[in-house]
Amino acid sequence: MKSRAAVAFGPGEPLKIVEVDVMPPQAGEVLIKISHTGVCHTDAFTLSGDDPEGVFPAILGHEGAGVVVEVGEGVTSVKPGDHVIPLYTAECGECLFCKSGKTNLCVAVRATQGKGLMPDGTTRFSYNGQPIYHYMGCSTFSEYTVVAEVSLAKINPEANHEEVCLLGCGVTTGIGAVHNTAKVQEGDSVAVFGLGGIGLAVLQGARQAKAGRIFAIDTNPEKFELARQFGATDCLNPNDYDKPIQQVLVEMTQWGVDHTFECIGNVNVMRAALESAHRGWGQSIIIGVAGAGQEISTRPFQLVTGRSWKGTAFGGVKGRSQLPGMVEDAMKGTIELKPFVTHTLPLEDINEAFDLMHEGKSIRTVIHFD
Amino acid sequence: MKSRAAVAFGPGEPLKIVEVDVMPPQAGEVLIKISHTGVCHTDAFTLSGDDPEGVFPAILGHEGAGVVVEVGEGVTSVKPGDHVIPLYTAECGECLFCKSGKTNLCVAVRATQGKGLMPDGTTRFSYNGQPIYHYMGCSTFSEYTVVAEVSLAKINPEANHEEVCLLGCGVTTGIGAVHNTAKVQEGDSVAVFGLGGIGLAVLQGARQAKAGRIFAIDTNPEKFELARQFGATDCLNPNDYDKPIQQVLVEMTQWGVDHTFECIGNVNVMRAALESAHRGWGQSIIIGVAGAGQEISTRPFQLVTGRSWKGTAFGGVKGRSQLPGMVEDAMKGTIELKPFVTHTLPLEDINEAFDLMHEGKSIRTVIHFD
Repeated sequence: MKSRAAVAFGPGEPLKIVEVDVMPPQAGEVLIKISHTGVCHTDAFTLSGDDPEGVFPAILGHEGAGVVVEVGEGVTSVKPGDHVIPLYTAECGECLFCKSGKTNLCVAVRATQGKGLMPDGTTRFSYNGQPIYHYMGCSTFSEYTVVAEVSLAKINPEANHEEVCLLGCGVTTGIGAVHNTAKVQEGDSVAVFGLGGIGLAVLQGARQAKAGRIFAIDTNPEKFELARQFGATDCLNPNDYDKPIQQVLVEMTQWGVDHTFECIGNVNVMRAALESAHRGWGQSIIIGVAGAGQEISTRPFQLVTGRSWKGTAFGGVKGRSQLPGMVEDAMKGTIELKPFVTHTLPLEDINEAFDLMHEGKSIRTVIHFD
Repeated sequence: MKSRAAVAFGPGEPLKIVEVDVMPPQAGEVLIKISHTGVCHTDAFTLSGDDPEGVFPAILGHEGAGVVVEVGEGVTSVKPGDHVIPLYTAECGECLFCKSGKTNLCVAVRATQGKGLMPDGTTRFSYNGQPIYHYMGCSTFSEYTVVAEVSLAKINPEANHEEVCLLGCGVTTGIGAVHNTAKVQEGDSVAVFGLGGIGLAVLQGARQAKAGRIFAIDTNPEKFELARQFGATDCLNPNDYDKPIQQVLVEMTQWGVDHTFECIGNVNVMRAALESAHRGWGQSIIIGVAGAGQEISTRPFQLVTGRSWKGTAFGGVKGRSQLPGMVEDAMKGTIELKPFVTHTLPLEDINEAFDLMHEGKSIRTVIHFD
């Protein structure tokens, strides 16, 4: 079948809106009609050419919502008409990782997904007879896309896709990091470095967890109003101080902050976040994705005196088990999604969404296909 | 009073055996007659001049056992005749850290201890009228030493001091790291980097915890026999491989090792240990003390894919609460101390203990005062 799609033909080039060919879903696969998709920094990172795993031409996009159109052989967990969110972190329920009870990092489709292929090693997209690669197992920048059954969360059909598509990545990552990775408890202090979509989601998670003092840190003070609305008690601009921000935070708290979150992907900020953590038990969670080859560093003394350095992917959330409940939370209002959607654009204007993001003007632009 | 002591008059100089003057214990302090003391790498590190906190002249030594001689005003938890182990990690029971239930890093005497002083800001030692500094709150290289009451664990008077003195540092650190910091569970895999006293103690802890596969890693294969005796199932010499040891371990285990321990103080090995940890949930514990100013580094991807980087001091053990029980374990044989004591020497020959350590010939030399 034919599908409108925004195709990344090469690194650094604007996406091109073309009609691609989509093959039917094979065994264990599902064809979905995407209604809405967010545009995330990770899409921009891969498009830039800096992503070592990036392959071209590809259909990017990994933060979407849609409806099942057709299922391949053996698919039992969804049927045509079901509302779904594609998952870049699959949940097969069968692998060592799924069964461990310790992580959401399922490996069922990991090897092929990283190469832009479906689990059988081929692609379902083509343009003028040439294959086009998949992206993060989702490729939500195509109106019709094929994903593995294990990479689909079935959600409440009453949910607003323009909002819940954001649970496909950023918001879930931020909220999940608070609950699953850091396990913030009532009264704990929290510091969030970087107030983009993920940082603001961490603030929401911290508020849900009834955290005590919540520090929001960004070099752009225009972010502070929304941060306060989401629960921040102290907003700090590192440029306002003549000493490192970790020193400022340790002085403000005497011994540091219980939980710190890096939501940017800047290795220097990752260090600052770790060194802001509380002596004895503080932990720092890396959420942001750093550029290829970049490294984090610190003095080992920071760890020997009781700090832990951790990371999270998709907020530790198991997509098929846990995402449906988060959609319910969004419908009840215990997760607020509306403030994240600062812009909406039709597919044809998707390159403008990247511009808005690079200019720091949007939290999320949601692309709609109708 | 007079006391025989091995004094470090300056960095890099051999210790000198002299008679120092010891003042009586002040309020909250205790005078102890040390019977035995181990010589640890940390003593050598400070003696070398590389320790930024090192002050001279000082009486080093922090791994001792002895008997209470006299108590200062207000001391209630010990009395003359009690057998004790001095603690370089105090336990006051009253500070934020002691009360947290999350860490053993008591701050009661921290600020003065780091400067070589008693809590009132003065020293109890002098030589020819000049003050001599304390070390790590212990100074066990003096036959008579004064320590804070909060820095003393009262132990079973039947215990063999030549052995249990080692619970004052290395053995407790290694065993404690397994139980308190890593919380190793039955069947978990463990890798120990560096088979000195601490590494061998980690092996004992892993065996106590009923760990499954236990990797012992050292560039000196002479350490492997004892490692196997202490429970190692696989002994690896990184020099036998033409690829990084972390790659070897990941290939041997498919996804890495559940718990890894760095027991050397080498920042490159710390990185190898972290990168040997299991994808999804592996953790790496830094025990070794790195040189001043040295830094650890890795790609943040290692943490984002589920590894945690931690550290431990004194194995997370709360000395006054937990050390007496570990002494009982040693008396019952569930902690084996005898194999650690490879050499014993009188105080007069203490510089030979440093030589044996630097030459890799000893695990521990225990100094006796009688």
